[in-house]
Amino acid sequence: MNNNSNNKRRFIRKNKNSSTTDAKSLPNQDKNKKAEARKFTVTNHKKPVDRKKQPREPQRKTPVRIIPLGGLNEIGKNFTVIECSNDMFVIDCGLAFPDSEMLGVDIVIPDFTYVEQHADKLRGVVLTHGHEDHIGGLPYFLKKFNVPVYGTRLTLGLLEGKLKEHGLLGSIKLSTVTPRQTVKLGCMAVEFLRVNHSIPDAVGLAVHTPAGIIIHTGDFKVDYTPIEGGPIDLARFSELGNKGVLALMSDSTNSERPGYTMSERKVGESFEKLFMQAEGKRIIIATFASNIHRIQQIVNNAVKHGRKVAVSGRSMVNVIGKGIELGYLKIPDGILVDIDTISHYSEDKMCIITTGSQGEPMSALTRMAMGEHRNVSITPEDFIIISATPIPGNEKFVTKVVNELLKLGADVVYEAMYEVHVSGHACQEEQKLLLSITKPKFFIPVHGEYKHLMKHAETAMSVGIDENNIIIGEIGNIIETDGVDMKIRGQATAGKVLVDGLGVGDVGAIVLRDRKHLAQDGIIIAVATINRNSGEILSGPDIVSRGFVYVRESEELMDEARKILADSLRKCLDNDIHEWNTIKNRMKDRLSDFIYLKTKRSPMILPIIMEIQ
Amino acid sequence: MNNNSNNKRRFIRKNKNSSTTDAKSLPNQDKNKKAEARKFTVTNHKKPVDRKKQPREPQRKTPVRIIPLGGLNEIGKNFTVIECSNDMFVIDCGLAFPDSEMLGVDIVIPDFTYVEQHADKLRGVVLTHGHEDHIGGLPYFLKKFNVPVYGTRLTLGLLEGKLKEHGLLGSIKLSTVTPRQTVKLGCMAVEFLRVNHSIPDAVGLAVHTPAGIIIHTGDFKVDYTPIEGGPIDLARFSELGNKGVLALMSDSTNSERPGYTMSERKVGESFEKLFMQAEGKRIIIATFASNIHRIQQIVNNAVKHGRKVAVSGRSMVNVIGKGIELGYLKIPDGILVDIDTISHYSEDKMCIITTGSQGEPMSALTRMAMGEHRNVSITPEDFIIISATPIPGNEKFVTKVVNELLKLGADVVYEAMYEVHVSGHACQEEQKLLLSITKPKFFIPVHGEYKHLMKHAETAMSVGIDENNIIIGEIGNIIETDGVDMKIRGQATAGKVLVDGLGVGDVGAIVLRDRKHLAQDGIIIAVATINRNSGEILSGPDIVSRGFVYVRESEELMDEARKILADSLRKCLDNDIHEWNTIKNRMKDRLSDFIYLKTKRSPMILPIIMEIQ
Repeated sequence: MNNNSNNKRRFIRKNKNSSTTDAKSLPNQDKNKKAEARKFTVTNHKKPVDRKKQPREPQRKTPVRIIPLGGLNEIGKNFTVIECSNDMFVIDCGLAFPDSEMLGVDIVIPDFTYVEQHADKLRGVVLTHGHEDHIGGLPYFLKKFNVPVYGTRLTLGLLEGKLKEHGLLGSIKLSTVTPRQTVKLGCMAVEFLRVNHSIPDAVGLAVHTPAGIIIHTGDFKVDYTPIEGGPIDLARFSELGNKGVLALMSDSTNSERPGYTMSERKVGESFEKLFMQAEGKRIIIATFASNIHRIQQIVNNAVKHGRKVAVSGRSMVNVIGKGIELGYLKIPDGILVDIDTISHYSEDKMCIITTGSQGEPMSALTRMAMGEHRNVSITPEDFIIISATPIPGNEKFVTKVVNELLKLGADVVYEAMYEVHVSGHACQEEQKLLLSITKPKFFIPVHGEYKHLMKHAETAMSVGIDENNIIIGEIGNIIETDGVDMKIRGQATAGKVLVDGLGVGDVGAIVLRDRKHLAQDGIIIAVATINRNSGEILSGPDIVSRGFVYVRESEELMDEARKILADSLRKCLDNDIHEWNTIKNRMKDRLSDFIYLKTKRSPMILPIIMEIQ
Repeated sequence: MNNNSNNKRRFIRKNKNSSTTDAKSLPNQDKNKKAEARKFTVTNHKKPVDRKKQPREPQRKTPVRIIPLGGLNEIGKNFTVIECSNDMFVIDCGLAFPDSEMLGVDIVIPDFTYVEQHADKLRGVVLTHGHEDHIGGLPYFLKKFNVPVYGTRLTLGLLEGKLKEHGLLGSIKLSTVTPRQTVKLGCMAVEFLRVNHSIPDAVGLAVHTPAGIIIHTGDFKVDYTPIEGGPIDLARFSELGNKGVLALMSDSTNSERPGYTMSERKVGESFEKLFMQAEGKRIIIATFASNIHRIQQIVNNAVKHGRKVAVSGRSMVNVIGKGIELGYLKIPDGILVDIDTISHYSEDKMCIITTGSQGEPMSALTRMAMGEHRNVSITPEDFIIISATPIPGNEKFVTKVVNELLKLGADVVYEAMYEVHVSGHACQEEQKLLLSITKPKFFIPVHGEYKHLMKHAETAMSVGIDENNIIIGEIGNIIETDGVDMKIRGQATAGKVLVDGLGVGDVGAIVLRDRKHLAQDGIIIAVATINRNSGEILSGPDIVSRGFVYVRESEELMDEARKILADSLRKCLDNDIHEWNTIKNRMKDRLSDFIYLKTKRSPMILPIIMEIQ
């Protein structure tokens, strides 16, 4: 929260009270509201021609639908449908990582149902950049819908690796675009606009629709001194703003942070100092594989200080390979050496770039910290820089790695105060900049949890966006605009599809509930064989448990449990109860009560009765 | 890391290279080192008498052992043994919360083996304060060792609640102490010294031993303007420093933070402003139950603004009750109302104090956010303050609660910038203050993970503590001092004992490994009944699975699995293999390969064979 909580309070209340079913939709505007909203184009002094064109009574156009199906009210799996008449396309198709409740789940992808229902309209996919939360769900999407994919060179380069893994390479049409290029998708056209981010070749989108221009920033920051590729295309964003932007969808990730995000170049300056400080030691730097600009700055410093560079971690090796191949990463000859050969070089002439900046348990840096890395043993002669901040949820992993590295005697630079990391997302002042130059009539904050969206809405209001023209949506909302109004018109199927191994969507609520139960207190299996005709117990009941107690030290408990089961089973049979489900439930209930009384635990109890004729 | 990384580097290297088995022990000191270490007392100008007493050749005394058995290199379960000749006592006995790997575990307590081995020496337990990580393991300890417990009034008051739950109340001797009081424990005496912390009645300890004075700060901060009870007893700490302190054990929790921790009173000032801002709305404040001073400040503001106070959450109700009973919390008559009666009062005249500041899934605030609270429904008329910062690992829980509260339209104050929370632990400048006035010969940073201990060691060096006189220990280290040297002399049994329900220590590595396996991919149970004599398969093999796939949608897979099992079993029997373990392993291996091939999952596979004669 910031200080204008009065604004905020009004904003929320209005939203809450506006309607019942679509609580967060835009209330009907009265005439005054419309006039106010129009001001953005009316006050355009540079292009008086436009002013004349502006009709007195606003003209309703062919409606366009914006349907966020991921990345709203949540972090990750960004996925948005834009639909107009008989045409539709998708912006990004990312994955999310499972939360702690999703036991055993590998990744989470968006629900494609809405696209399936309108598959005939689908004209293609446009990509903003190559991060997992924007392209990681795409192979699953493309298995269902073979449509062209449009993206910048690096983005498609990274996508190719994924398609190869999924056996899709060659079967999908990939179209490389460059910033300021426009691609026609049915009755709409998508213009790609350079933005800055923590991966090269990121773009925002200007979607030219019959109803007006919709700008989607993608993930962005404003970097006036980027390492490569030039700053965000503020000129074109402004130009579009002057023409008139119907709606802005803008990145909310950092909307709680005041001020500006620092330039990536700042990290290079920190590296400069740290390379001096680390003289005589081996340098190991962990960062995100996709941050090629960061890697370039590490390489530049290594070259300057006469160090070789070795790379560890599968994704780091892949991305660096791709970066060099496509010319985004420039490494002079003779600098890069194989990680298997590092023992041939003096340690103080070595710089290792590695994955594991989030303390991921299987990552290269974690393996180094645990003494399990094939090539790298950490000693007091190591100077380690973790060039990242922990993503929420990863703090404990990172701390563990830091502790282990320190215990091995290494120097570890891991705190934010060293400026060894800058964010890839716009802070409040940059968000204001985009809002101010694009001057949108409507504003939809995207990419963030609810608190981020709310904060971004406040920021938008502070630069003059009418609170009634802001939509805080959620996934599945069908947001429709005819150029005059913008409303939530309905709800599409949206949600999380869990991927576990090869299974897509076969792990649902029941499986997860069972996994949680098993994880908490384990399982007790009770098996008996019964003669179906005579009702005689032929074998058992026997007990097998896993994850419950250490059986060898709980023999007495298990013996008692067996007796209780036998008694329960015999009583059923003696009373002529032969309905297996009834018998099983009685056995389960009695054992469950006994176990809880003795241990205050509730393992899953699974009676199995085998019958023999 | 701070800027004096050169210091740090030297420090680590010295520690690492000093020896092999006890790598972190203190290297033998040469004459110069001894002289240098002595400077702390030699440069004492105020008490020249002491100077004369100082012998030229230091005299070795009866050795004292300091054995940290918890709270070192880890957060929580603080537990330290002090031993001298035939006497021994324990400082604190806390619990820790399970980490994400310890599935189903409720709490973690220290390993008491060392105390068991020397139980005849045990003279009692001294407590520094009433937080869970300092007293939460005590009931388990006292069940094994019925010895007197010494603590301040509130500390023992909170302990009583725990003893009652464990049926121990009345059977344990509880001795109330007041600051500056000294308790004799065999050949040692423990003096209790007031410190400030986030719970009232916290004390540090000066342990007077034959070898010299050992100071243990407990958890502390320096608050010159505490809400109640007066500031930390700097005068006595200084006096002891002038007498000569052999060793200081000091709280390292905030050792990464420069500067000073703010006074608790600062939070009151923030509440003051927020109560004004919240005018007309209901106020709900979540904080730690044990922070009675914070609660007092909330009450004071409620009184001032004409609001009633209601309390939600079991631990909050308990602690407030105890606080009032013992006089630590002063609530004017007629202010406190039952949570069940809040509907009788106007919302803008109500202030609810609740648990859940860490977003704990079952806490009162979480239930409010999820719409599951019996008495409180959140609306846009609520102004909610989360007066705490998330403990590492809880960030996502807190964020979830914040998002839900915001969605319900409430105002939520949750960020650090509002100063609605201050830490209970000393920052670097306060740590320096303690080091400077106690002037210890030896320094043992305690209460913190390795990175915190290292940082505290750096801070100590920056105020002149000799790097060779600092011990970065780990739990189980037997640190021995004769007043001249201090060394790690051996290793005691130390570790984590897991409590799950009523079971203490019966959940170990195997059970946890199984729970993890079950949590990841579930379980497949394969059962068959066989005639032991004829080798005939009488029933099955049947398959039951839990947490693997949604069976109704995977019938084909399960059918195939059944066939494979039957084939595998038959082949064994046909080949005269009758060793059940061999048969089970073959079934397991074949099914496992098949399942992995089809699903890329590895559920636990459990074949059970029932025999009938």
